[in-house]
Amino acid sequence: MEIQRPKSKQPIPENAKRVFKGIIFDVYQWEQELYNGSKAVFEKLKRPDTVVILPVLPDGKIILIEEEQPGSDLVIGIPGGRIDEGEEVLEAAKRELLEETGYEADKFILWDVQQVVNKIDWVIYTFIAKGLRKIAEPKLDGGEKITLKHVSFDEFIDIGTDTSVRFIETEVTPKLLEAKAYPDKKEELRKLFSPEY
Amino acid sequence: MEIQRPKSKQPIPENAKRVFKGIIFDVYQWEQELYNGSKAVFEKLKRPDTVVILPVLPDGKIILIEEEQPGSDLVIGIPGGRIDEGEEVLEAAKRELLEETGYEADKFILWDVQQVVNKIDWVIYTFIAKGLRKIAEPKLDGGEKITLKHVSFDEFIDIGTDTSVRFIETEVTPKLLEAKAYPDKKEELRKLFSPEY
Repeated sequence: MEIQRPKSKQPIPENAKRVFKGIIFDVYQWEQELYNGSKAVFEKLKRPDTVVILPVLPDGKIILIEEEQPGSDLVIGIPGGRIDEGEEVLEAAKRELLEETGYEADKFILWDVQQVVNKIDWVIYTFIAKGLRKIAEPKLDGGEKITLKHVSFDEFIDIGTDTSVRFIETEVTPKLLEAKAYPDKKEELRKLFSPEY
Repeated sequence: MEIQRPKSKQPIPENAKRVFKGIIFDVYQWEQELYNGSKAVFEKLKRPDTVVILPVLPDGKIILIEEEQPGSDLVIGIPGGRIDEGEEVLEAAKRELLEETGYEADKFILWDVQQVVNKIDWVIYTFIAKGLRKIAEPKLDGGEKITLKHVSFDEFIDIGTDTSVRFIETEVTPKLLEAKAYPDKKEELRKLFSPEY
């Protein structure tokens, strides 16, 4: 599976300077000529791309996570995390799935790839994982408190589209709302999330 | 109209240090005790809040903008921009509406307020403006090339939910998809966007 990284709608140009290197975020600035001939300094961020993985169990249940982080409220999310430097996208998906859930998967389907925010060069890759085998216990770092939640396909759609739920993976919400809006899209999605593959 | 600013789900704590001050983005870091007693440095950004304004003309058409920025592709968006330091939210909405469209409005309805991205303290306020009077020509800075587009309510919903359109105001897309999913929500929204008020 060759995975193309989508370009930002406002790419950081080659001549941009990195003016700050952070723990997650790096800041780039460059001088840009405007339409009226004057010049201005533009600014944009770069951060590590991330993967999220929707694991489908043999009984059709999808694994979500209830997550607490120091200084944050309790939220519902999808297993995943940052791609390490030099790591392949798919390798990161396998590693994060294993670390956060203890599962290994036979198949990874790339469901969605997107640049998330205009002013940050940041891609989220969303996978559906099937053919799951539990091979370990979740291995969390000291900054995470995670509870795994098994939800049905219909519950997943409800959780992902209910604005009263603290669902943080807003990158998938439009796809789930689309399934609610169009019955044929919902049936397509139901097949994509069936445990068979 | 008193406008409450929603808190981030992962607020920047009081003891955080600003480690970089950019043109748009400031970077904050702080030491955080983890669940296992160890410590780590956390990082989060702050940027100016923004307003977007959906102006409804007397004939029911909504004004969107087709926008070109240096170094960016052509995109479709909603009139709006950054709130200046010390400026009230509603004042910023009035100013941006006037600058980008030349219109003044009798009524501003606050339709949506949200923190957009977990790791950035950044709020988008979305207004619907009614009772419009054209009082000036748009006044653009040298970094903007804008064409105003008048679209019907149904066209607005289509543009905002069609993934093949370069619609950049993804903060409103879930609300428009919701309208597509639920006929009663769509009728509610149609009323909210009617030129009467």
